[in-house]
Amino acid sequence: MDLLKVDQVFSDDERYMWRCLELAIQAAGRVAPNPMVGAVLVYQGCIIGEGYHQQSGGPHAEVNCLQSVPASQRHLISQSTLYVNLEPCAHYGKTPPCADLIVAHRIPRVVIGQVDPFPAVQGRGIARLQQAGVQVQVGVLEKQCGWLNRRFFTFHQHHRPYVILKWAQSRDGYLAPPNRQRMEISHPYTRYWVHRWRAEEAAILVGARTALHDNPRLNNRYWYAIAQPSASDTGRSVRMVIDPHLQVPGTHHIFDQSMPTWIFNFLESRQEGNTHWIRLQPNASVVEQVLAYAYANQLQSLIVEGGAATLKHFLDAGLWDEARVIYSSTLLGDGLPAPVLQHAQLLDEMPCGTDRICWYQHVRSQK
Amino acid sequence: MDLLKVDQVFSDDERYMWRCLELAIQAAGRVAPNPMVGAVLVYQGCIIGEGYHQQSGGPHAEVNCLQSVPASQRHLISQSTLYVNLEPCAHYGKTPPCADLIVAHRIPRVVIGQVDPFPAVQGRGIARLQQAGVQVQVGVLEKQCGWLNRRFFTFHQHHRPYVILKWAQSRDGYLAPPNRQRMEISHPYTRYWVHRWRAEEAAILVGARTALHDNPRLNNRYWYAIAQPSASDTGRSVRMVIDPHLQVPGTHHIFDQSMPTWIFNFLESRQEGNTHWIRLQPNASVVEQVLAYAYANQLQSLIVEGGAATLKHFLDAGLWDEARVIYSSTLLGDGLPAPVLQHAQLLDEMPCGTDRICWYQHVRSQK
Repeated sequence: MDLLKVDQVFSDDERYMWRCLELAIQAAGRVAPNPMVGAVLVYQGCIIGEGYHQQSGGPHAEVNCLQSVPASQRHLISQSTLYVNLEPCAHYGKTPPCADLIVAHRIPRVVIGQVDPFPAVQGRGIARLQQAGVQVQVGVLEKQCGWLNRRFFTFHQHHRPYVILKWAQSRDGYLAPPNRQRMEISHPYTRYWVHRWRAEEAAILVGARTALHDNPRLNNRYWYAIAQPSASDTGRSVRMVIDPHLQVPGTHHIFDQSMPTWIFNFLESRQEGNTHWIRLQPNASVVEQVLAYAYANQLQSLIVEGGAATLKHFLDAGLWDEARVIYSSTLLGDGLPAPVLQHAQLLDEMPCGTDRICWYQHVRSQK
Repeated sequence: MDLLKVDQVFSDDERYMWRCLELAIQAAGRVAPNPMVGAVLVYQGCIIGEGYHQQSGGPHAEVNCLQSVPASQRHLISQSTLYVNLEPCAHYGKTPPCADLIVAHRIPRVVIGQVDPFPAVQGRGIARLQQAGVQVQVGVLEKQCGWLNRRFFTFHQHHRPYVILKWAQSRDGYLAPPNRQRMEISHPYTRYWVHRWRAEEAAILVGARTALHDNPRLNNRYWYAIAQPSASDTGRSVRMVIDPHLQVPGTHHIFDQSMPTWIFNFLESRQEGNTHWIRLQPNASVVEQVLAYAYANQLQSLIVEGGAATLKHFLDAGLWDEARVIYSSTLLGDGLPAPVLQHAQLLDEMPCGTDRICWYQHVRSQK
């Protein structure tokens, strides 16, 4: 999906904020649990520095931006405007506070896309800048900035991961043929998108029947890998199966120990290497328990890849944020009906091989 | 246009080369006369470093990529594969040779998209790596790599700038109403694309009638500016007018001295501040003389924005590489007919507001 589609008339400030977003999104899938952030430094209508937060634990966007200014132009920093899509931090995390860095460089004006909802920041970065006499403007391209970091915002504001539902359906509306034989209904090029999506989310989930019949690996094999080899578990995707009665045999791919795997079930809690069995309460919502457990483990996003029953649980509970539907040109004639979307707004669509990929957003009624 | 549209089944090497291209294109419009280059370092299927050439004179992609590897993973560099879309340099330019840097880091394998056509490199980077025992593979995603740097390649291989023709036409095929009144036929969002295109090319050209009647500024006001304030003239766009008999009055915007402006004419050669009058031979092809002069002045690309006669000169001479046509939904009923494309292949199309933007490539007959 083209996240960066101009659909309004821009002011000067908005154009430079746009560039922040273009840079920030280069780090998609590799900075969680941090947000994606880009920064540009502008002197008299010209960008003299830019940078983005490249990886969790690495330098922030503001640091990379300031470092990128060539030696011959460093004297212009104190007469420039800094644009950044998220409020500069004000706390000592893995790096020193960016608000202090901005003040130390005597940057007179800072334009910010959004206030940081992270409890250690939440307006403190802006306050520190203002106390130091920096002119601060907030809320430029706020909608687009929010969309870029929708996982991060959902996690901190709704205390659950951002949920993406994904499925491929035949032209006549079926997920699979009647006999459940395994069948690739989407075009080979679409595979790259699906694997990229896996790489971009913190967790990938399927139900027991999909795990049993399709025996998926649920890993990313067709897009470039973005995990760092020595990263902690939170830096890698977790695969999840909802298998209440533990029906999936231990010889299936999900038990190959190649990545952290969580089996949500009603029978037991235990761990064997990378595989974790997590016992759920049978009398409460499975979806809510899965999301609560993921939240407690700092997973900011989840892509649900089927099957029909599992997708329906998330849809019925209203616990989804985005749906990505692959409309194949294949005809099946009969089979397992695809889920029905409600309260969905089409955001974008794209041809891919002989498929059409559509992005929908969950539209919640205003309360 | 989405330059990065998967239209083939990828190997492992191709996926990482793809990432090089995604990074490289971030520098569109700001590295000329250098090519756009991205590099990623991969250890056992995981990217541990990446970078791109951000600005002319700045560090090369390979340098930024190696610098981005975290301290905790630097011991893995000598067991990793480096991917780079263009052959690493072997000469001392503004920075030391990247081939030497790769050898010094004991990187055992390098995968390259294309051989560098720049005379000082042209295979010497590859030879130096191979002499040092590095395993080198060349030609991965060569077509896509070539498209990314099509301006650079056209300049060095055909000794002229890469030529882009651009116009907007009404739904019924007219460039303008019959009375030549100035009229914006395209949608306001399309303006961002047009100004971005100006920012991305080394030169912007119009004919005398367009300069006279439309009085255009031919600068970039609606996209973020990418020029560096202290950059030399070659780092900025040049605006050009073909005005054989010097009919455009000195009060028009093109004479405002705000950027280098070249007036090609049959009458005189002189300079006044940023404005240069260049006298052409009346008995030779104007288009060829303009391109030869641009080549001699190191301009790698040129966008021709009209009018009808000027576009036709480039089309008739076959001296164009790409056409970007904005199909407006406006109806005019009568007026100046739009140019007719021949030997053109549609590469991509995109809705933009109520317009549709189409990208065409000039298809030359195989000789």
